[in-house]
Parts: sequence; C-alpha cells; structure tokens
Amino acid sequence: MPAGGAGERGERARTIAVTLPWDRIMMGGRVFLAIGKTLMWPNRRLCDLLKIEHPIIQAPMAGSATPQLAAAVSNAGGLGSLGCASMLPDGLRNVARQMRASTERPFNLNFFVFPRPNTSDAVLTGVIDRLRPYYEELSLDEPSRKLPPIGPGFDDEKLELLLEIRPPVVSFHFGIPDAADVGRLKRAGIAIIGTATNVAEARKLVDGGADAVIAQGWEAGGHRGSHARNGPGDGVGAMALVPQVVDAVKLPVIAAGGIADGRGIAAAFALGASGVQIGTGFLSCDEAGTDAPRRALMRAASDMDTMVTDAFTGRAARARRTRYALEMEESRTPLPDFPQMVALSAPLGDAGAKGDFAFHLYGQAAALNRELPAGELMRTLVAETSDVFEALSAGKEMPA
Amino acid sequence: MPAGGAGERGERARTIAVTLPWDRIMMGGRVFLAIGKTLMWPNRRLCDLLKIEHPIIQAPMAGSATPQLAAAVSNAGGLGSLGCASMLPDGLRNVARQMRASTERPFNLNFFVFPRPNTSDAVLTGVIDRLRPYYEELSLDEPSRKLPPIGPGFDDEKLELLLEIRPPVVSFHFGIPDAADVGRLKRAGIAIIGTATNVAEARKLVDGGADAVIAQGWEAGGHRGSHARNGPGDGVGAMALVPQVVDAVKLPVIAAGGIADGRGIAAAFALGASGVQIGTGFLSCDEAGTDAPRRALMRAASDMDTMVTDAFTGRAARARRTRYALEMEESRTPLPDFPQMVALSAPLGDAGAKGDFAFHLYGQAAALNRELPAGELMRTLVAETSDVFEALSAGKEMPA
Repeated sequence: MPAGGAGERGERARTIAVTLPWDRIMMGGRVFLAIGKTLMWPNRRLCDLLKIEHPIIQAPMAGSATPQLAAAVSNAGGLGSLGCASMLPDGLRNVARQMRASTERPFNLNFFVFPRPNTSDAVLTGVIDRLRPYYEELSLDEPSRKLPPIGPGFDDEKLELLLEIRPPVVSFHFGIPDAADVGRLKRAGIAIIGTATNVAEARKLVDGGADAVIAQGWEAGGHRGSHARNGPGDGVGAMALVPQVVDAVKLPVIAAGGIADGRGIAAAFALGASGVQIGTGFLSCDEAGTDAPRRALMRAASDMDTMVTDAFTGRAARARRTRYALEMEESRTPLPDFPQMVALSAPLGDAGAKGDFAFHLYGQAAALNRELPAGELMRTLVAETSDVFEALSAGKEMPA
Repeated sequence: MPAGGAGERGERARTIAVTLPWDRIMMGGRVFLAIGKTLMWPNRRLCDLLKIEHPIIQAPMAGSATPQLAAAVSNAGGLGSLGCASMLPDGLRNVARQMRASTERPFNLNFFVFPRPNTSDAVLTGVIDRLRPYYEELSLDEPSRKLPPIGPGFDDEKLELLLEIRPPVVSFHFGIPDAADVGRLKRAGIAIIGTATNVAEARKLVDGGADAVIAQGWEAGGHRGSHARNGPGDGVGAMALVPQVVDAVKLPVIAAGGIADGRGIAAAFALGASGVQIGTGFLSCDEAGTDAPRRALMRAASDMDTMVTDAFTGRAARARRTRYALEMEESRTPLPDFPQMVALSAPLGDAGAKGDFAFHLYGQAAALNRELPAGELMRTLVAETSDVFEALSAGKEMPA
C-alpha cells in the first residue's frame, strides 16, 4: 500500500456492506437471494498461478507430510506438498506416482538448496568436545568423527528427475537453484516457489526466476528458509515481514508462520498476501505422519513451547524447547555444516530419556491445532476465513 | 475462534457485500445513497472501554513520545501515550497538565513494574571485565563500579501521585502492580492496561485486574514487556501471539509489534484484536522527539535492521543491530539488573563513533514509516484500514 493509500478510492468500483437481518437484498430493482455462502478470495493471484481453488498450501514438512495428507489437501482445493529433500530417485518417482493416483489436482514437491558441506577438523573437534558429556550421560560411545558424505542440496540428477516427473509445482528452501536450472523447470510447465525470511532474500528469489515467494515469519515451525546461516537476533515476524515483502516484489506472496486458522489466513490477506502456507496446523490431521508422542505434545502445546536452534541439523529450525537445545544455544559452539550435524545429534535424540534431547519440529501456534481429517480441516479453514472477512466488513456504517 | 467457527453463522445478522459501479443501493424498496465513507470498527470493545473514536494507541516510548505527539494522536481520535517511568513527581504533574491543556480526549501514562535492582559483586566484576576493552577502544576511563541506586519501578509514591493526577488511562510494562494498588486506581476511574509477551503473562494481567491486555509481538521495537528476563528463543510473533491471547482472556486485546499501516491494523482485527498499539510507526511524525540521526536511520531502514538485546539496559529490547549488541549477545555475559546496566552502557553510546555503540530503539516494520504530522498519520491509518476491510470483503461472491 503506498503512503496515503486512500487515494485510488474514487477510481474503483465501490463496495457497500449492508447488514441485514434477513437473507435477500434488492438491487437495481431486482431481488437477490442469498443461496448459501461461497467464499470468493479477495486476491486470486496465487490461485490463478497454481490452478487451485483455495490459496492454502500445506507445508512440505519432510517426515510428517505423507502422500495421503498432501493428496487430501489437494483434493480439498488447496496445494498439498511433500518434502523430498532426502529422497532417492526411486522414492521420488514412487511418491509422484502415488500423488497422481490419489489426486487429479496440482501438488508440490519441495527440495533444499544448500552448498556441499565442508566441515573443518577444528569445528568437528570443538563440537565433539561439547557433546561428549551428553553422550556420556546417555551411556553412548564416543561421538563419531565420521560425518556422512552429503552432496549439495539440489544437483543435475535431481533436475533431470524433476524434468522427467514434471510435478505441477516445485518449491525450494534455503535458496533457489541456478537461473538456468529454474528456467528449464519453468519451460517444462512447472511453477516455481521459493522461501524468503527477509526482504533481501525475497528479491533474490525474484532475480532467480521464482513464480511466487513464501514470506516465512519467525513463528514458523521447522527449518527457517534463510539463504545463509542465522545470526543472533535474526528472524522477522510475519506481521512485519509480509507487507514489506509484498511491497518489494511483484510476485504473489505466500505468508507463512503462526497461521493456523481462519483468523491467521484473513490476517495474511489483510497484510497483502495472495495465499498462506500452513505447516504445524496440518500436523494434527489424521493423515499426517506425526507420531503419537508429538501429537500429545501438540495437544498440550503453549505459545512458548518452541525456540529456534541450529543444534540439531546445523541450520536454524524452530523446534520444541528442550534442555539440549537451550544449552547448545547458550554455549554457541560452532557446528558442522548442514545437514552433517544430524549425524552427531541423532544418537542423542534416539537415546535421550524424558525428551531432553528430542527433536520435535513445530511452530508457535501449535496450540491452535485441530485434530481433523485434512479435507475437513481445509473446509473449516475456508469457512472460518469467510467468517472473518464478513466480520471485518460488517462493522462498516451503512449509507443512509 | 472455536474449532469449526462457522457454527454460529445462522444466528447472526447476515452481511452481504455488493460491489457496485455506482454509489447507491436499493434495499427493502428504499434507495440508500453512499455519502462518503465512515469507518465503523468491526470490534468496538477497546473504543468503548477507553472512550476513544479509533482503537489505535500510540505507544508510550519514553524519550520519543512528547506531549505534542500524544495530544495530536488523542485529538485525532486515538489514544496518545507518554512514557513516565523515569519522571519525577513535578515532571509528571507537568506533563499531565500539558496533556489536559492540549486535548480534551483521553490519554495514557505509562509506567514500568520491576523489582528493586540487586546486582551482585560477581556480576558487576564480570560485566566490567567484558566491557573494559570497549571502554579502552573509546578512550574512556575504567567502567565505574558505582551503579546508581534505583528504587522499584512502581511504588506508593507513584500510586499516590496517579490518584492525584487521575489520568484517564494508565498502562504498565514488565508486569502489573499489586492487585490492591490496581484496585485503587480503577476505583479512581482510571482504565488499566498491561503488556504481555505470551499467554501466561496475559493471564497474570487478567488476575491482576487489568482492563485490557497488550499482546506485544516479537516484531515490536523497544523493551519487550516480558514479566521476567528473556531467555534464548523467547519471543512470540504477533501472528501467533494475538489469537492465542484472544482465546485465553476475555478482556479486549491490543495487538502490538510490526504494525505500521492499515494492512497491519486490519490484520490485527482479523486475528481477533480490539485495537492496536503502534510505536515505531509514530517515530517519524513531526511531533515525535526522535532526533535527526534516528530519523535518517528509519528513512533507510530494512526489515533486518534490528535485534533483541539486553546489552543496553539489562532487559531485552529490540534496537538497531550494532556491533556492540551483536558481540554482547554472542558472549552472553550476565548483566546488572534492569535498569542499572544503563550506567555501564551509556558512556559507550555517548562516546562511540560510527554508531557501533548507539542505542536506537525501533521495530521490524520501521521501513513502512511515514513522515507526517501525527494527526495526518492517524487519518491515513484509518483510511487505509477501511480500504483493506473493503478489499477483503469485495471478493465475496454476490448472491444470485
């Protein structure tokens, strides 16, 4: 919105909201009857781009988003997503086949973009010294100095595979591939979405050829999509981030972070977004791959349950606040490159009692979760959003 | 919003939004003409409580909020506020007199609630060792071991003074006074507002007798109103915080953090708020006490300019990201109790070149600031909000 945003008012079609105690209205001499409510989204840019009915993207959430969940969301008119970063070619072909068998609507495959890890001996020695007491406490052997060899996050093999599979939508986290690769995907008819955690990253996604930008707020569960490692104090809340990204880029902006119900969806549209991405909100759905302990945690969640830490994977992620995460954040030991740190933290999580070392990814609005089938959650979200839009306009004074 | 919030729809008056290319509408056989637009707020709980026209509170911002700024906001129908935490009795009587001379409308005086500082020798020695290199770099004498004696944030003297002055509204930061004191203020006709940074704090404010609760998101500039010192990873973004506070308390909720234009205000109402508190957004107003260097910084601000640090005062505050703040956050030296840390950081800020040690308080949406007189900013905010409400309802399908 430009400064003094009231300026264009005269040029637009005028909207008058009328609150009636009954369900018909006369206009231009004709009587119009209200015949049930159909939400027409106030901004259809994302719907038009992705060919979806409702601008609600279920976040990819590797390990939690199943083909069943994604298909249910797509079938309900949203965009179902699958986190494919660590899938091998056959696995990827298989889930794409599953998606196509379960829905005729668009779906999204998500990949990570990161440089090949290159952890120095000094960093490895430092973090092992830092972790040794935890390993001893849990009666584990000495932490292994052998970090797994891991390639870059997105490479030629994955590109060729995507050109073969041709999913309707591909989204990227932590950055965007080379413009040439993005160009090939787009020419194959694939819509490209990237994640930004600040305005500068949003601009990089535009330059890289993205078709839409996810503005991921500080509230979001899971890995922050920052294109570089986070520093202390990084993290822009959605309320401040979304309008600044909307002002900075001409693409449709998808708000993410802390959005779990119709209030959050309506707020995102108020901020100028053309859609939302919801992750944590889908974790309690029947079709999600969320295990029983995490379902129980979310049932009892509060707004202060989580924190941002890189102590599990080497990249900042919002996860449940545990003793391990708090102590590692306090000490700020330099960590192995993403995702090699997983090799050192995973044995702790597997062995840890009382959840002190558990890696539970979720966001700041987990307390708003509903335990519903995904299709029913989608319908609830749309109905709630419609109700909020209605409530916001209902207060307007009637012309007299 | 309860799960499945669509339930009540049938019991409510039905609202139909109609987009017309002209400015009259027939209803029930009568013709209604649009005679200019008057925004009727969709939720008037805060307006009714505080007896204000527009539910927009200008944040107190000690040192930046002048009586001129506060009076301009109150006169424009909002609630002007003054930060009075460090004022002596005569100064407080004086600003109250100034406010009453400049506006007949309600205004707000803000106070801090904190325990008497009790910094240990060990902490003092540790922080002085940490600061010594900075003092040397700036050619300052050895940091002083003499911290100023500071009483508690709110005491009997301030209570009696407020009962004498009887401002229409009093707001508290970092907590709320004893219930007995709050009761006396309320019986004197003063409306009481408290700040919460999470749901548990909001509940404490309700128990303490507050009339309304500010839900202060992570995005907000200035001191976080947390009732205890912040830990790593604390900080709930407004998008997640506001609906959870709305669900937890029955009082009107005032959203704060990252709100700078009509988009943010409309988003706050979508999340269930009854009003907003805007701080940074008023710092560029002509009447604000913002000095020229900070005005220039905000003119060039980006979403990543700031961070949360306690390195200046001993309590977490969102301020400009500087070398000093970043290095202090990295090292996490235990600091003297709030506000005694000011005695040690202020000489650095006064002497520091290139802004490395400057303490510039502002929030994550500073880039959205407008340089306007406060009354004009208020009118702009209301017009923008009205436009957003309209845009959100305009997409709704017309009954046919």
